Amino acid sequence: MKLMRLGPAGHEKPVVRVDETHYVDVSDVTPDFDERFFGAASTGGGMLGLEQVVAERVAAGAVHPFVAPDGTRERIGAPIARPHQILCIGLNYSDHAAESGMPVPEEPILFTKSPNTLVGPDDDVRMPRGATKLDWEVELGIVIGARTSYLDSPEQAKDHIAGYLVVNDVSERAFQIERGGQWAKGKSAETFNPAGPWLATPDELDDVMDLGMWLDVNGQRRQTGSTATMIFDPFVIVHYLSQFLVLEPGDLINTGTPPGVGLGMTPPTYLQVGDVMELGIEGLGAQRQTVIAPR
Amino acid sequence: MKLMRLGPAGHEKPVVRVDETHYVDVSDVTPDFDERFFGAASTGGGMLGLEQVVAERVAAGAVHPFVAPDGTRERIGAPIARPHQILCIGLNYSDHAAESGMPVPEEPILFTKSPNTLVGPDDDVRMPRGATKLDWEVELGIVIGARTSYLDSPEQAKDHIAGYLVVNDVSERAFQIERGGQWAKGKSAETFNPAGPWLATPDELDDVMDLGMWLDVNGQRRQTGSTATMIFDPFVIVHYLSQFLVLEPGDLINTGTPPGVGLGMTPPTYLQVGDVMELGIEGLGAQRQTVIAPR
Repeated sequence: MKLMRLGPAGHEKPVVRVDETHYVDVSDVTPDFDERFFGAASTGGGMLGLEQVVAERVAAGAVHPFVAPDGTRERIGAPIARPHQILCIGLNYSDHAAESGMPVPEEPILFTKSPNTLVGPDDDVRMPRGATKLDWEVELGIVIGARTSYLDSPEQAKDHIAGYLVVNDVSERAFQIERGGQWAKGKSAETFNPAGPWLATPDELDDVMDLGMWLDVNGQRRQTGSTATMIFDPFVIVHYLSQFLVLEPGDLINTGTPPGVGLGMTPPTYLQVGDVMELGIEGLGAQRQTVIAPR
Repeated sequence: MKLMRLGPAGHEKPVVRVDETHYVDVSDVTPDFDERFFGAASTGGGMLGLEQVVAERVAAGAVHPFVAPDGTRERIGAPIARPHQILCIGLNYSDHAAESGMPVPEEPILFTKSPNTLVGPDDDVRMPRGATKLDWEVELGIVIGARTSYLDSPEQAKDHIAGYLVVNDVSERAFQIERGGQWAKGKSAETFNPAGPWLATPDELDDVMDLGMWLDVNGQRRQTGSTATMIFDPFVIVHYLSQFLVLEPGDLINTGTPPGVGLGMTPPTYLQVGDVMELGIEGLGAQRQTVIAPR
């Protein structure tokens, strides 16, 4: 399944994508794709039997077009509700570690973003006041499907992942690196975590470790990569994190970015108001954000 | 007012402390002391008129004893529901920075804890698997009372603080410092943020910048301090953070610890299973936790 949320910010309804043009409304099955919904998978609820509901509705023709007859289309929100936590893995592609002038980590580097940074895939990214080094990072996001603590093995993590999605781990490098040592300060501004357009359940992907990924700024290719070159794969990451903290259903993990960020360019090149980022991952759809001025 | 939550973990009811022996049940006014409750203060709801409700109930004798006639007492939970985020300020007492071998920071150091670390003031602290350097930190906690972004001044922060409480910023120093660079990894294990017993609204304190604080391990005094020696005071902290991220109502900020942590002792001395931590802050009550074995 491909889960989406459509509607105005803060009032999205949960739907399931049928194909490029149509979706099934499931807001009568669950009020949202949130901690309670994802937690139902681990208590035998299997995402509340959503797959069967969708199959029945498709068979009955109870589908809706993304584009209304008058040509309008609803806003696409992040495919999950605001999570309990957003965890991020740093320097998880060897080439990106090199371009950042950092050694390849011996074990996953953990940092965090404020959960209220989550926005839709095509929402504007707002430049923070005083920002001088606004940067992009296309990443594979993992959504947790069950309360997770002390997994025995990376293999076991497969039962704890609800699905995958595209995220842009927007960063302000001066706030991140030059303002006091911990990265969270440059990762947590409003609109800094576009996500979506959809959450793909694991069965939708032939091989999560072989997905092409890309990011353009103003039509110019900046990042090209593949999940094949990740240092720590999603199963290793979830197993690893579960040794240090408890993951809740619906938690989001950003798994790191391939080479090509602004910080790594010669000279470093950062986003300006009006710039457009377009990014995507094979099988997980594409995003498009415009950088807007500070409030 | 002194807000408390009483009852089994995950099923606490919101109450207001009247005195050492009695409380008023306010679970019919608000289901919890959560983001919605604290947000009501900023939209003219003034904490849902709680002060008047409590005054009326006290006048009518509608109070309950903390200790039941049969001698039992309910568990005390954290005085706030699981927050959207727990932010922490590092090295915010000049003496603690010195004992940690770190320079006094030029601006507040931000790190984070997972929100599900929050537990009651007298709950057990569970040692994580593989822990070797489990440490204590008595701290003044701030609870945010309104959505907060880009405050104009520290003075303005006074209108955005719902109250203050005691927290123990439990830390695993090896996970924090020796496992990959960012502190969150050693701050986020289950039970790592005891909070309470109560949240005091600002009017309850004569001067938040002059509160004595202390922590004992097994009856031996380890930390003695005062909020008077904080480098960045609560108003400076809230103003500062609002420049980097959006604070939500009910968010918790741990404001740093005075000298006397295990890491700073000669030789460094850490917690063992069975150890008992007792800690408190003047006007904000006291906590008592026993360290228990890993799961």
